[in-house]
Amino acid sequence: MKKDGNVYGNHISQSFNEELAALKSRFLEMGGLVETQVLQAVKALTERDAELANLVRDEDKVVDRYEMKIDDAAIHILARRQPTARDLRLVVSIIKAVSDLERIGDESKKIAKLALQLVEGDKTPNGLTEIRHIGQHVATMLNGALEAFARLDVEKAVEIIKEDKNVDAEYKTASRSLMTYMMEDPRTISECMSVMWVFRALERVGDHACNLAEHIVYMVEGEDVRHTKIDQLNEQLKRLD
Amino acid sequence: MKKDGNVYGNHISQSFNEELAALKSRFLEMGGLVETQVLQAVKALTERDAELANLVRDEDKVVDRYEMKIDDAAIHILARRQPTARDLRLVVSIIKAVSDLERIGDESKKIAKLALQLVEGDKTPNGLTEIRHIGQHVATMLNGALEAFARLDVEKAVEIIKEDKNVDAEYKTASRSLMTYMMEDPRTISECMSVMWVFRALERVGDHACNLAEHIVYMVEGEDVRHTKIDQLNEQLKRLD
Repeated sequence: MKKDGNVYGNHISQSFNEELAALKSRFLEMGGLVETQVLQAVKALTERDAELANLVRDEDKVVDRYEMKIDDAAIHILARRQPTARDLRLVVSIIKAVSDLERIGDESKKIAKLALQLVEGDKTPNGLTEIRHIGQHVATMLNGALEAFARLDVEKAVEIIKEDKNVDAEYKTASRSLMTYMMEDPRTISECMSVMWVFRALERVGDHACNLAEHIVYMVEGEDVRHTKIDQLNEQLKRLD
Repeated sequence: MKKDGNVYGNHISQSFNEELAALKSRFLEMGGLVETQVLQAVKALTERDAELANLVRDEDKVVDRYEMKIDDAAIHILARRQPTARDLRLVVSIIKAVSDLERIGDESKKIAKLALQLVEGDKTPNGLTEIRHIGQHVATMLNGALEAFARLDVEKAVEIIKEDKNVDAEYKTASRSLMTYMMEDPRTISECMSVMWVFRALERVGDHACNLAEHIVYMVEGEDVRHTKIDQLNEQLKRLD
């Protein structure tokens, strides 16, 4: 089912090709940036690194600028080049996916802010192992989704969509265990709540990575997989083979 | 600064006009549906109405179908009509805004699920007054954003963007007070956590309403107000007058 990554390149107009390629590569650049942000935010928090947390917080402005530039470039292509079929789906998918990347940036910023709060406390909060673990998991999902985007790889995208269930399960287990700590020692409630928001933020990063993967399937197959249960998804993809 | 709502209607092609108008009206219909969902989800929760909670949960499928249909119609217009300038901005704004509406639907579904959990408990949880209050507030914001969308009313949209700060403040106060309950009686922690997720879900509805309002400013003024602080926003809008 894998498609040749250059399928968008066989165009008559060379400069149109170049604009599309530039749009895609800028999108992937932004993706790389937010992936780094997620990992840095988790590192800042688990290693109590205030400097790194400040860096992540400030980088959010760069992410925001990327979003606006990509949107502008996409709209420019729609207006000037009036793409159709697959090219159009690529541009529309990027317009949608860029919002997901921007929101991943927002979640990293939230984690960085919580890291700055936690740094001020004098003891190590519960749940750091889980944060490290889930953080790594969703960053890997995001990396996979971007790779699938770069190579227009539907199989890989479907893997990512399926993976989101595991992140959700990890998130639930981690939240439940944190609640036990809170009940055992109510003095830790406020601190545990901060950790809980971090779990939540990471879980949302997983959701956005999953959204990215859904845009890829739509872009390549023209098949809308949002709001589709995994079993149905497998059925749909079998039909497309 | 108000613009004539019919500015998109002065087109040469009658059927193009009709397609754009149909797209916009379907979008507003979906907006009305998710607004009702928010109010119903809050009512189901605060009045322990399991039937209503189930209804909200099931309606999410209708919202999902709306999203896919609107996306299809928007892409169809891009491909066949190749709109430019303001028409293009309208279509792109709808493509972006429809994701916000869909996510509001998701938040309502989450609230409905938590309502079903809370119905099973035998006592009234803390925080219901705040849920009612914040719920009403964000539903009003959403209603205002949709009205601004319908009338392409930038002033109204800017009001909504500013309002989001107040929702955030209410959310923080409500969360803090809930944490006090948790500390006083750790047996209520699990139940309080559910209420906390409801606060969070409602706060996110406010965020999405704010996103909608930002799309309106962009659509009408061509000025990107995302990632702009309120002071800068006022400056920008003054320049546009």
